[in-house]
Amino acid sequence: MPDMIDFQTDPSRYLHWRVDYDGPIANLYMDVNEEGGLFDGYQLKLNSYDLGVDIELADVVQRMRFEHPQVKVVVMQSGKPGVFCAGANIRMLSGAAHNHKVNFCKFTNETRNAFEAAEQDSGQKYLAAVKGTCAGGGYELALACNHIMLTNDSSSSVSLPEVPLLAVLPGTGGLTRLTDKRKVRRDRADIFSSAEEGVRGQRAVDWRLVDEIVQNSKFDQVVRDRAEQFAAAWDGPDDPVEGIALGPLDRKFAEDGSVSYSLVDVRVDRGGRKATITLRGPDTGPATDMAGFAGQGDQAPMLRLARELDDAILHLRFNETELGLVVIRCQGDPEKLLAHEALLLDTRDHWLANEVLQYWKRVLKRIDVTSRSLVCLVEHGSCFAGVLAELLFAADRSYMMEGEFEGDNRPIASITLSASNFGLFPMGNNLTRLQTRFLGEPGSVDAAKAQIGEAQEAGEAEEFGLVTMILDDIDWDDEIRIFMEERASFSPDAMTGMEANLRFAGPETMETRIFGRLTAWQNWIFTRPNAVGKIGALQCYGTGVRGEFDQERV
Amino acid sequence: MPDMIDFQTDPSRYLHWRVDYDGPIANLYMDVNEEGGLFDGYQLKLNSYDLGVDIELADVVQRMRFEHPQVKVVVMQSGKPGVFCAGANIRMLSGAAHNHKVNFCKFTNETRNAFEAAEQDSGQKYLAAVKGTCAGGGYELALACNHIMLTNDSSSSVSLPEVPLLAVLPGTGGLTRLTDKRKVRRDRADIFSSAEEGVRGQRAVDWRLVDEIVQNSKFDQVVRDRAEQFAAAWDGPDDPVEGIALGPLDRKFAEDGSVSYSLVDVRVDRGGRKATITLRGPDTGPATDMAGFAGQGDQAPMLRLARELDDAILHLRFNETELGLVVIRCQGDPEKLLAHEALLLDTRDHWLANEVLQYWKRVLKRIDVTSRSLVCLVEHGSCFAGVLAELLFAADRSYMMEGEFEGDNRPIASITLSASNFGLFPMGNNLTRLQTRFLGEPGSVDAAKAQIGEAQEAGEAEEFGLVTMILDDIDWDDEIRIFMEERASFSPDAMTGMEANLRFAGPETMETRIFGRLTAWQNWIFTRPNAVGKIGALQCYGTGVRGEFDQERV
Repeated sequence: MPDMIDFQTDPSRYLHWRVDYDGPIANLYMDVNEEGGLFDGYQLKLNSYDLGVDIELADVVQRMRFEHPQVKVVVMQSGKPGVFCAGANIRMLSGAAHNHKVNFCKFTNETRNAFEAAEQDSGQKYLAAVKGTCAGGGYELALACNHIMLTNDSSSSVSLPEVPLLAVLPGTGGLTRLTDKRKVRRDRADIFSSAEEGVRGQRAVDWRLVDEIVQNSKFDQVVRDRAEQFAAAWDGPDDPVEGIALGPLDRKFAEDGSVSYSLVDVRVDRGGRKATITLRGPDTGPATDMAGFAGQGDQAPMLRLARELDDAILHLRFNETELGLVVIRCQGDPEKLLAHEALLLDTRDHWLANEVLQYWKRVLKRIDVTSRSLVCLVEHGSCFAGVLAELLFAADRSYMMEGEFEGDNRPIASITLSASNFGLFPMGNNLTRLQTRFLGEPGSVDAAKAQIGEAQEAGEAEEFGLVTMILDDIDWDDEIRIFMEERASFSPDAMTGMEANLRFAGPETMETRIFGRLTAWQNWIFTRPNAVGKIGALQCYGTGVRGEFDQERV
Repeated sequence: MPDMIDFQTDPSRYLHWRVDYDGPIANLYMDVNEEGGLFDGYQLKLNSYDLGVDIELADVVQRMRFEHPQVKVVVMQSGKPGVFCAGANIRMLSGAAHNHKVNFCKFTNETRNAFEAAEQDSGQKYLAAVKGTCAGGGYELALACNHIMLTNDSSSSVSLPEVPLLAVLPGTGGLTRLTDKRKVRRDRADIFSSAEEGVRGQRAVDWRLVDEIVQNSKFDQVVRDRAEQFAAAWDGPDDPVEGIALGPLDRKFAEDGSVSYSLVDVRVDRGGRKATITLRGPDTGPATDMAGFAGQGDQAPMLRLARELDDAILHLRFNETELGLVVIRCQGDPEKLLAHEALLLDTRDHWLANEVLQYWKRVLKRIDVTSRSLVCLVEHGSCFAGVLAELLFAADRSYMMEGEFEGDNRPIASITLSASNFGLFPMGNNLTRLQTRFLGEPGSVDAAKAQIGEAQEAGEAEEFGLVTMILDDIDWDDEIRIFMEERASFSPDAMTGMEANLRFAGPETMETRIFGRLTAWQNWIFTRPNAVGKIGALQCYGTGVRGEFDQERV
């Protein structure tokens, strides 16, 4: 077992995936290395996966958008005969701690959401070409693609056997995508989700489980044809010619677990059960145009900041599970930050500007579903402006410095909204964070919008409802300390449940249903003896012994 | 502890509530008898409640609509000085089994939904007049009212102290109503839900936690004024003069746990882990008009059937927790049943017709959220027509007899839809069950609608997608047996999670969010040592010892 789970990788290090690029079409092969598990104690047979496999997939999906923007169709297929993908590895799951199981499912969900949205966000359509067994998490992989093709032979089928075999739910959005995306009739979904053997052939089409079945002998050709057809149907701008390379992050770990990136710093306080993330705004002005931005490659500050923050959040989620509070600070010149953002906003039709903004959208959504108490401190010298102001509305609370602080000569704390706060970064519920915040007073969204570009000091920020509380020099230290101590004293489980409910007011979408309803039920099942007990189904799987169940219904 | 929990009661037996009727205004007093707990081992101090208190409240709410239709405003208030309601009793909760906790919360949620919807459904508005402590489930009681008034003194406040005090969530919709009904800003909701002491005075209004605060000395008068004002504002038909009395159910329990009502029969099969509910359609024709219907009082078959089915479902939920499968059958003349329904549909503007139909809506919703596998058997001689056809679409699966069965001379099985299947009985997601069923093919709803009044035998029923499967004489017994055995072999927890996800495709509402997202998280927290372990917060409450928490975040 590794000391630390690292979310950084690159194609030269892949164990489980390979990609062949062919103009607008990318052929993505899943070919899992049995011996390449992230932890000891299991073999990744039959293209089953663990977190390590998914970290590579997330990397593929990310690079597809930045490094290979010419790709319009990604054909997801197996590199192994007779099996598409057998889903999450059972022995890995049965050996994993509860919080790893839950975090694993959350990350795999985020990756699936990312490639599912790639068609709409970036014009990259994912096509699942399914030959052989496609079970559980394997079918969920296909479900998150935009089109599913199934070969019509006697052995290829799609299935969700988790319930009958393992007494858990399909953990990566399967049930929700069945009913809400594929719109499978619920009694058929019931049969399908309780049958080990799955469904194949015409019934798979009739039941809306796949989009088409294709005679086996013609399968590869029809898949190629379909990919070309989809690629030809692309009607967006054709500008991307060359991508930009995503190099390794500039990142250092300290002895105490703190991490320093080029623009992001993560400080760990184990006694206080918290981590403090400090973001640094850009020191210099932006490139004059997107050609200049592209010339900076992965060093453009807006991209660097997103990558580093994304990595920091994942690191805390998986490697620092006892730090229940994440404090978010920033320091820098708001004007400079807004100038960098303005270049992207003004040239949103440039593919790279679009990709950087879409990436911020994903990073912010990752923060929304991060199961830690989040607080923003708006200190003097900070740059909560534009995209960074979104952090204030993603956090559970925010505190802002009011007036002069003795001995502090940094510029007075202010918040500046930009156009990006009003539509560019929707939450999973499809509202902006400000719309969600002001669900009860929609007029406040308009009032805030009228302040675009105006730096709001504490009094105004409070008046416009942008922060939870403003505090002067006399109260700041004590109030913040009391809040942090109080938060550290609460049950982490109650915080998880409370935050998961309070953060997502208003409408639900397939995405919020996956992280809300589905995940919450799975979370519960993952604690139940019927699934994880000594004679529960997960432990008994493959032993020939059948799990014994407590028959009580709750 | 009672051998059996009985959901039937009447005002002569109330221990905890009393109602003063005053024309269009009803004053409802919560005055919980400390010694009147449903189980041993706790006292119901400070107007705290257990299931027994809530069974009485549900009875009040139900009788308000049938027996007192002239009431336009219900003023919910405390009969005790200094306390409105302290919420669910903690000792009761800490002593209760997991499945009782969950079922208790579900039932209290259903009761709150019922009085919250009474304004829209029946023109009965609930007003919470809060004096004194209004904490946890007490504030959730107020939250479910249509208007909240809080007295402005130094001690009266509203609070949700569950998270800080007990490490569980407010269990009766509190968090969801905060964000979705009251639309409290999420950071304020976060502060409010993590503060033991609650909020009072002007802040309670500013934060949208209550609708108005009133000076203590004027409180009673202003409450009276407000109630009269609301009653005067009623602009619906003024027809109700006299209600109908709801007498005791005709109900017998057998030794083996089976129950017989006048039109409903519940047969228990412990070995097979199932209960079979058989509904009997009316033998004779309906009254000629609603005056005649009212003359039948609680003996009108459509009302009797709803009351008996409702009671049977609650009985199974609480008293037969190991029966994981509920089989629903019916026998009777579909034409007669439809004639009874037609009287209600044709005179929906009559208050009693409306109440009976609204009651069916609630019973069907109760079935939707019942955590048991539900299957309908459409046998020869059955009457799945109109409102009873809704059961087919509420069930997880339905099987229908096709063609003649040897030695069976009952009328060939058929299904007849009526206008009631297309809007009168929405699910919690605000779609009809047929709309939810055909989310992927809305045309099928129209196709089904064109068949209103036509009896569909098996072939057509399958073609129109009304049943899961049709089976002939050769296959019927085996297929049904295999299904039932299979269902009994699955983990009950996995069934609960699977069904909770598959049943509610499409949009979410505050109601489905309460039963989905909120309940699922609470379910999980109720299994966690931080809440229910030996040194968890629920067990330690009141002992002076502080719970020790596992700090791992999941």
